[in-house]
Amino acid sequence: MSEKPNILFIMADQLRYDYLSCYGHPHLKTPNIDRLAKNGVRFTRAYAQSPVCGPSRMSFYTGRYVRNHGSTFNNVPLRAGEMTMGDHLREAGMNAYLLGKTHMTADQKGFDRLDLSRSTTTGERIAQCGFDVIEREEGVYPEPQDKEIHYTSAYNEYLRANGYDGPNPWHDWVNSVEIDNEVISGWYLDYVDQPARAKEEHTETPYLTQKAIEAIDHFEEDGWCLHLSYIKPHWPYLAPAPYHNLYSEEHIQAPIRNDEERTNAHPVYHAYQQLRVSQSFSDDDIRKKVIPAYMGLIKQLDDQLGILFDALEERNLLDNTIIVFTSDHGDYMGDHWLGEKDFAHEQAVRIPLIISDPREIADKTRGSTCDLLVESIDLASTFVDIAEGDTESPWLQGKSLMPVLSGQKIDDWRNVVFSEYDYSTQAVRENVGADIDEAFYITVISEQHKLVYFPNFRPILFDLNKDPHELEDVSQVADYKDILDDLMRKMTRWLSLPNRVTESRQSRYKRTNTQVQRGLWVGVKNAQDHQSALEAETR
Amino acid sequence: MSEKPNILFIMADQLRYDYLSCYGHPHLKTPNIDRLAKNGVRFTRAYAQSPVCGPSRMSFYTGRYVRNHGSTFNNVPLRAGEMTMGDHLREAGMNAYLLGKTHMTADQKGFDRLDLSRSTTTGERIAQCGFDVIEREEGVYPEPQDKEIHYTSAYNEYLRANGYDGPNPWHDWVNSVEIDNEVISGWYLDYVDQPARAKEEHTETPYLTQKAIEAIDHFEEDGWCLHLSYIKPHWPYLAPAPYHNLYSEEHIQAPIRNDEERTNAHPVYHAYQQLRVSQSFSDDDIRKKVIPAYMGLIKQLDDQLGILFDALEERNLLDNTIIVFTSDHGDYMGDHWLGEKDFAHEQAVRIPLIISDPREIADKTRGSTCDLLVESIDLASTFVDIAEGDTESPWLQGKSLMPVLSGQKIDDWRNVVFSEYDYSTQAVRENVGADIDEAFYITVISEQHKLVYFPNFRPILFDLNKDPHELEDVSQVADYKDILDDLMRKMTRWLSLPNRVTESRQSRYKRTNTQVQRGLWVGVKNAQDHQSALEAETR
Repeated sequence: MSEKPNILFIMADQLRYDYLSCYGHPHLKTPNIDRLAKNGVRFTRAYAQSPVCGPSRMSFYTGRYVRNHGSTFNNVPLRAGEMTMGDHLREAGMNAYLLGKTHMTADQKGFDRLDLSRSTTTGERIAQCGFDVIEREEGVYPEPQDKEIHYTSAYNEYLRANGYDGPNPWHDWVNSVEIDNEVISGWYLDYVDQPARAKEEHTETPYLTQKAIEAIDHFEEDGWCLHLSYIKPHWPYLAPAPYHNLYSEEHIQAPIRNDEERTNAHPVYHAYQQLRVSQSFSDDDIRKKVIPAYMGLIKQLDDQLGILFDALEERNLLDNTIIVFTSDHGDYMGDHWLGEKDFAHEQAVRIPLIISDPREIADKTRGSTCDLLVESIDLASTFVDIAEGDTESPWLQGKSLMPVLSGQKIDDWRNVVFSEYDYSTQAVRENVGADIDEAFYITVISEQHKLVYFPNFRPILFDLNKDPHELEDVSQVADYKDILDDLMRKMTRWLSLPNRVTESRQSRYKRTNTQVQRGLWVGVKNAQDHQSALEAETR
Repeated sequence: MSEKPNILFIMADQLRYDYLSCYGHPHLKTPNIDRLAKNGVRFTRAYAQSPVCGPSRMSFYTGRYVRNHGSTFNNVPLRAGEMTMGDHLREAGMNAYLLGKTHMTADQKGFDRLDLSRSTTTGERIAQCGFDVIEREEGVYPEPQDKEIHYTSAYNEYLRANGYDGPNPWHDWVNSVEIDNEVISGWYLDYVDQPARAKEEHTETPYLTQKAIEAIDHFEEDGWCLHLSYIKPHWPYLAPAPYHNLYSEEHIQAPIRNDEERTNAHPVYHAYQQLRVSQSFSDDDIRKKVIPAYMGLIKQLDDQLGILFDALEERNLLDNTIIVFTSDHGDYMGDHWLGEKDFAHEQAVRIPLIISDPREIADKTRGSTCDLLVESIDLASTFVDIAEGDTESPWLQGKSLMPVLSGQKIDDWRNVVFSEYDYSTQAVRENVGADIDEAFYITVISEQHKLVYFPNFRPILFDLNKDPHELEDVSQVADYKDILDDLMRKMTRWLSLPNRVTESRQSRYKRTNTQVQRGLWVGVKNAQDHQSALEAETR
């Protein structure tokens, strides 16, 4: 095949890795996503760089660790000038389009400092995290925080055009229920066993799917990258009929938690347990309402992906489109006495990741699983590799997965992955009495262990081999001292790496051993010495 | 005094902290610099953020650690958009001017990516590390690497206008000697006991001094910051008459070194000992030629500072001008069998720092010394404090020294300082077999100890209390294990700090505990729950 391949980069929001049948869920059948796995590689140990939307996504979109791209929490602007996946791909001749959610906040101070303007293509790309935006939709708010994004969104216009009235039909119809003529917000967990007021075909997931098919029909170029970024199954957890009651109590798995987790919990873990959302999800009545809705939203997503994949097939694009499916992080759903994501257990940090590459190069690995430790930053490197761009760029911190996909023998792989979390804007910070600058933790995950490092508290350590459910913190167990020290050493080494982005590794090589040639006659005693120094350099 | 104060920020290049009489040199008398110390505070434990020009200066000019500003070695561009001292001061209504050296390299790739242009004031400031350039002079090269900077410099024009001929009079006259009608480069260490061919009044230091006086005469505003950045006593070590032979063998201090340092040296230290410049400076004949010339250059600088301070006094500016004197790093001069700087001993990383604040607020501390651990990044914070700017800016990583200068009781100070070095472009890297990404070390200095961390080799540890000359590496001595572990923990904690620059700490405080108010009804079960969540937030 001579044409450049396309990349369809699909992201679900807050989809827990184990809520898919190909990842082992016993009741939730996701045949379309499973089909992708059958045609590609399913990664069993892929991790989000942060278990919360914004920083995780900025890592996907820049190929850099959270501490390096600096957008450490939702709404912390991504610094103007940070190099993105889109920038790398465009350098390699492939455009990168966005449809859906990014959780990007533009760096207005940086725009001002650099005299940039959003009225230029360059400026708008910087403000949109490097993408050319087809349509951006960031999710629903009952009372819009940012009118431009949440209130006057194209999706709200679409809903109005379809007869849903009010100032914010997204909230009032797609995210509300109706009981005895009373409209109640779907944010309220007590009511999510009810269906959304809107028809299924008008809800977010089918809307974005249709938009994606339209977009693909309009691409004129050879080799595009489309980031199709779904808003669901992220809260508000409200599904339209018939998805709202496809599942019921018997399809819910028992929560992974025990009473010991609540006694003597690590101070930060304890503070997370105290949050409103954790209290709610520790209530089994809430789990019984929310989990079926969450499963319904995932089922709806799978059905829509079936429609999308069929559309690709009809257009003869399946043979030339690499399809990537992942999520920005997971959801506790009451496991470990927690709701939401935000902490370090596998439920929050591990993500589903499937890559289906239809090209012959990937034939050997079709239908296989890969247990290597993969980080979300690896996708940017992988895409740049697919586009035949500069994978050696100093900005890219991940590893291309193409060697895995093409079935090469992998000798040299990372032995730990890192996930970071900044809780400085959360109530947890005040509850544990942490200063803003120390309100963070770093999770270090090896094949068999997981360390959670806090600058101001003792660590947490799990033995993933003996205790795969992460119920026992062994950080204070003497037998684990060597493991703890080893993971700390690896974290320190990772932290210590210089963050050099303005110069390529290649030009570093060039500068070694050419000092005298370049006019720096440092330490040269005389003309004879000069000559021998030059000769030494040219050897 | 109602007017805004001025800041005269004087930097010498490669001036070792102990080559000044106020810092204890027994033979080199520097009465003008000493006078500054008598009127201000002399810092005895100030450190460069890196013992090499470029990264050290970028830390001075940004107020950020090397790993955070990312310009990790000479000629590694400072990322476009990095906030500088000049940017902070302008925000506070004070302009920052440059006269002399910065070692700044503009980030052309960043300019291209951001569609910036040097033809705008903003673009030119970004290219000049945030300064408004009066005149930039970067030092002399025998064969110019960068014609724009080194060859056609204003100083070369000035020399031509004064009758010095040739394409590169800076090199051929100011940095050359003449023996038996033969012109020999002053880069050659064998000849630096000879005087430069140029007259003293035309050499770099008097030239920049006169330029500074002219510049000051032209400032029309109230409250300026002038960075007067001298090129000397940095190599080439060639002094004009009469400074070339003011000092001789009897004024040279014995080298600080012993034979044990050469046996079983740490691999990286060993590789530095093998460099041409180290071999040259381990030769006592070379020390006898170079050290008197180096001392002569410092003496010339001190004399010129006397002229400069007199000029300020004549203009009634001494009462309203805060004068800061420092250096970007030191010079081994053969100590520890090393030449140049580039490694971790005090000769390289410790810097002279004197701040003389004429305002009443500093009266209590005049003539005192301060033994607190000070980092070069503290100056940016100090200047912003003087200008009454935003010292809480997330970009600024240092601490203002104004509380010290004003004699406040200091309860809460750092207990370690950090200095970093990237040797990936040096021959040392190949000689120790390090990969480019691991060719760096980090120096951690506490009141009594110094740790040098290498990602790929064992550490080095000095007991500064028992072994102030740093002749014995105790990293492998069992008694020091706790010290080593403690310094490692402190380094890890420092490394782990998030690098958040796009959002202020204040706005972080604001976002804590306003989730429900801001429309994120996460975990809310129903309307009643909503009300109590809102009430909890407003408490």
